[in-house]
Amino acid sequence: MNGAGRLPAAARAIATGDRRALARTISGIENGDPAVVPVVRALYPRTGRATVVGLTGPLGVGKSSVLNVLVAHLREAGRTVGVVAVDPSSPFSGGSVLGDRIRFERAAEDTGVYFRSMASRGEEGGIAAATRQVVRLLDAAGFEVVLVETVGSGQVDLAIRDVATTRVVVLVPHLGDEVQTLKAGLFEIADVFCVNKSDLPGADLARKDLAELVSLGGARHGWSPRIVLTSALARTGVPELWEAVEAHEKFLDASGARAEEDRRRLAREIVGIVRDRVGRDAMARLEKDPELRRLLDRVASRQLDPYAAADRLYAQRARRARQR
Amino acid sequence: MNGAGRLPAAARAIATGDRRALARTISGIENGDPAVVPVVRALYPRTGRATVVGLTGPLGVGKSSVLNVLVAHLREAGRTVGVVAVDPSSPFSGGSVLGDRIRFERAAEDTGVYFRSMASRGEEGGIAAATRQVVRLLDAAGFEVVLVETVGSGQVDLAIRDVATTRVVVLVPHLGDEVQTLKAGLFEIADVFCVNKSDLPGADLARKDLAELVSLGGARHGWSPRIVLTSALARTGVPELWEAVEAHEKFLDASGARAEEDRRRLAREIVGIVRDRVGRDAMARLEKDPELRRLLDRVASRQLDPYAAADRLYAQRARRARQR
Repeated sequence: MNGAGRLPAAARAIATGDRRALARTISGIENGDPAVVPVVRALYPRTGRATVVGLTGPLGVGKSSVLNVLVAHLREAGRTVGVVAVDPSSPFSGGSVLGDRIRFERAAEDTGVYFRSMASRGEEGGIAAATRQVVRLLDAAGFEVVLVETVGSGQVDLAIRDVATTRVVVLVPHLGDEVQTLKAGLFEIADVFCVNKSDLPGADLARKDLAELVSLGGARHGWSPRIVLTSALARTGVPELWEAVEAHEKFLDASGARAEEDRRRLAREIVGIVRDRVGRDAMARLEKDPELRRLLDRVASRQLDPYAAADRLYAQRARRARQR
Repeated sequence: MNGAGRLPAAARAIATGDRRALARTISGIENGDPAVVPVVRALYPRTGRATVVGLTGPLGVGKSSVLNVLVAHLREAGRTVGVVAVDPSSPFSGGSVLGDRIRFERAAEDTGVYFRSMASRGEEGGIAAATRQVVRLLDAAGFEVVLVETVGSGQVDLAIRDVATTRVVVLVPHLGDEVQTLKAGLFEIADVFCVNKSDLPGADLARKDLAELVSLGGARHGWSPRIVLTSALARTGVPELWEAVEAHEKFLDASGARAEEDRRRLAREIVGIVRDRVGRDAMARLEKDPELRRLLDRVASRQLDPYAAADRLYAQRARRARQR
């Protein structure tokens, strides 16, 4: 392990609570600045301590409101909290637009909480990787709880699976037919279901429906997802929500699942880095190597199919490695 | 190119219009059955002829309704139409649930149209690959137009980018703040904007907003996205929607962009196949190879960071290739 003295300056600053260094490094991650990679790497030994809670769910269920009351609850209990909100991005501003101002105003008055929005721009897998790095920074900065809020869409849900130790899926009563099917997709990742807006009619029915889904799905690796009713408006159910998260965290420790899941997440990350590098190499060669350009010509003219071309690209890669 | 006589039986049947062979092969693609790979590959020389139109947009904008009136319009004009609706899946039924029955009933009476829902289960990129194969089958089966309908979420939108020649983004007036930002994300892939439910107040304002976005974004490779107002309920605007699609298709031919985009899509597909294979290899080795298991142990105990582990896995791969 590195002593603090041997860390890069930015890493040392982040580890000792410097919020501006933290903000700058997160911006670097968002922008894909290679200068931040050594900072994140240097802080890696200081990670793995935070409780990382993912909040996801369809648009309009009030995830941000749940998050806000949850942060208030945790601050009252004396816990420090880092928040990453992963928002869809604007291609023009390049930044996030939702609710940042209000959050930042509050954050300015309380050093025990840190809010940050991340733009979810870019390529497949890019947002998952960036979110993972930001969570690591918050973990290394010493926040006891890190909350990650995302919209419930395919790509971004993968980010939740790959970073959170406990995943909370937020829903509302009367989801409607289309969202019912989304709920099923989100089911696979939920450790806790939060039925928000439970002051609306139908909350008990929603709980019953979910309980049925849970019983059909069976306990996953020994954990049966909890169901909690909240109303962010009325501020009810929030202590119960946090209790459910803590129950899952205790289960992770007692069952040995924490170490196993951490290992699995890290394996996926390492393999992902290798895959991305191989993919970038392959794309560059396909654009530049005359032999491979002719291969692509033949695929474009439907003389050769893409699987056959992939076989040759794969074989050429192995051949080049042998010749090195 | 294969003559029809040398095709596998299922491929020959699909190419000559056998709907049951088509349905069985699509089910095979959904289920990841390796037996369908030779069928799809054999049909590859017969692809690249259909106009492939992607319809995407947030939940609740009426994509399915737009799709239905568009199909009716195309059938009246004598065009044959294949439809793939990519739906979120239920983890229990493993299948799609939305509107299939009604569609199949209509399809049974008209052999010039074929409807099929696909479950969007499974891994990152999996749905994009499966959708691509199904579109190829419909193309090879001779459908002049292939429509692909998806929910507007990150992962699935990639499917649209990777298969459609023209991408239609469906929206409604008064999207609300949250969906406004989604719209911006969808902006990057739109060739045509369809403002549906244009009988609602605010349709002209929505058109004006979009026109402003379009003018800010500038023409992309020489094409400036068209904006069309429809009402699937009142059945207005549908001929105009199809005209906008055809204008974009003509642009693709006139500008040479069609060949260029086809080539780019194929390059991404080939590289994707190589990446996935390398990823699967790497994951298998990480689980089985004792040296790599120790490497993962050191990452899990925070002695080594994931980038350093990826470097070693990458180097070991090259070394193994050299020793072969």
